Amino acid sequence: MCLPGCQETVARRLMARRRFLKSAGAAVGLAMAGCRPAPTSEPQAAAGQTTFSRVVDLTHPLGVDFPSFSGEPFMEIEVLARFEDGGVNMKRWHLTEHYGTHMDAPFHFSDQITADEIPVENLVLPLAVVDIRAKAAENPDAQVTPDDLRAWEAEHGPLPDRACVAMNSGWDQKMTGDGFRNADTDGVLHFPGFHVEAAQFLLEERNVLALAVDTLSLDHGPSPDFATHYAWLPTNRWGMECVANLSAVPATGATIVAGGPKIVGATGGPSRVLALV
Amino acid sequence: MCLPGCQETVARRLMARRRFLKSAGAAVGLAMAGCRPAPTSEPQAAAGQTTFSRVVDLTHPLGVDFPSFSGEPFMEIEVLARFEDGGVNMKRWHLTEHYGTHMDAPFHFSDQITADEIPVENLVLPLAVVDIRAKAAENPDAQVTPDDLRAWEAEHGPLPDRACVAMNSGWDQKMTGDGFRNADTDGVLHFPGFHVEAAQFLLEERNVLALAVDTLSLDHGPSPDFATHYAWLPTNRWGMECVANLSAVPATGATIVAGGPKIVGATGGPSRVLALV
Repeated sequence: MCLPGCQETVARRLMARRRFLKSAGAAVGLAMAGCRPAPTSEPQAAAGQTTFSRVVDLTHPLGVDFPSFSGEPFMEIEVLARFEDGGVNMKRWHLTEHYGTHMDAPFHFSDQITADEIPVENLVLPLAVVDIRAKAAENPDAQVTPDDLRAWEAEHGPLPDRACVAMNSGWDQKMTGDGFRNADTDGVLHFPGFHVEAAQFLLEERNVLALAVDTLSLDHGPSPDFATHYAWLPTNRWGMECVANLSAVPATGATIVAGGPKIVGATGGPSRVLALV
Repeated sequence: MCLPGCQETVARRLMARRRFLKSAGAAVGLAMAGCRPAPTSEPQAAAGQTTFSRVVDLTHPLGVDFPSFSGEPFMEIEVLARFEDGGVNMKRWHLTEHYGTHMDAPFHFSDQITADEIPVENLVLPLAVVDIRAKAAENPDAQVTPDDLRAWEAEHGPLPDRACVAMNSGWDQKMTGDGFRNADTDGVLHFPGFHVEAAQFLLEERNVLALAVDTLSLDHGPSPDFATHYAWLPTNRWGMECVANLSAVPATGATIVAGGPKIVGATGGPSRVLALV
């Protein structure tokens, strides 16, 4: 999710967040203490080798009309030089980090590591795609629950070690018009995300290193407290939002390459995300 | 290479370029007409499968002190929100495209495709690393020549089909101080690059889709005309500059993943570049 410029939204949501943390903070802390920490030191190669034969682009094209979390413009493009004038095209981007297909680094919602500090071997992971398109079509506020994850495992086997678990809600098909943000008359957004209990299940019961969603936020649109962000990111795990084309990759067996920014101190940012299938 | 803000440099260099193009334009045109066009349409999977067991980061960390082609600041980072104030960290980047480990899209030096239009299968390619560290240590203006490429093939076999050919000059070890730009008292830069004849050899005699360098430019530092840029990019092939860690990957057998920006209309930009080994 992403909030630049929308200080009022930030303030409103963070007041709600603080209330949440006061009541749930201890529980979240306990959950974090009990979960496996994400490796942040030396390379830890997955056992064996990875094989692929084709590449699928999981990245949306990012233009200035891409929907932003707050609805405000998040990017301006300045033309510095034109080929027809001098033989060179060159531009300058003015860009809020959390825009387009983009990473949430742990530092986005904590004082943990920034995007450039994520170990490179944690950017290339087995990809597990959880398809909730049917229930998301019925309810735009649908969430991935522990039951969805258990159902996935019943069909496909255990979630891979060191996996990225991605939610396919079908939301990547709503890029035109207002359906992607899907704001109601009160300005509350309505799109799917991961329920905090699903995040906690993955933290405590499985060895999962990343979450990806095809919507604007790891939390579903009406979340008042970003509970999933606050459960997930402070454990030095990353998230990826606004992912595209998850319907074009298998539920299991693909590898995600999360080309996150290596900009020093980044809280996240536009990323080139590929699947190796 | 990258020139924002340095209009005088642009003007001076482009006058030289125009002189070059007047004399060499026909020859470049002929070379382009005779070379294999880079695929730009449907996926063209490499025959067979690719296998890897570890990931090497070919990307430099990009801070505001990273050397720029012109020597001017190319990036500012604006802090929009702080975790200690409101529970969220968020920033906005003001960033000239050709900075850090970054892509040159064909559109940078032509009216051809932009970074977002490069077919995704052309971003994951067999990597051939040409080691010219010995001669670059003797001469900072060293260039990769056709003889270097033939010597590589004599040792390692034919350049792989659809390869990215990377120059390892050892320049990634010069990131601190002024050695990376290595400007003389007249402001002329001195670092290695690809000789235009090497680019033409690869265009005409081999099926190579990309060039990568560990310096600021596909052309060596003192180039008056960007001859290699103008030979290479208008054929819808891409380049990658300021690549890191090429000494950590084998001369042949690795796969480069060029996580170039998918920003609409980009002439290139900071990229997350990995090697799968």
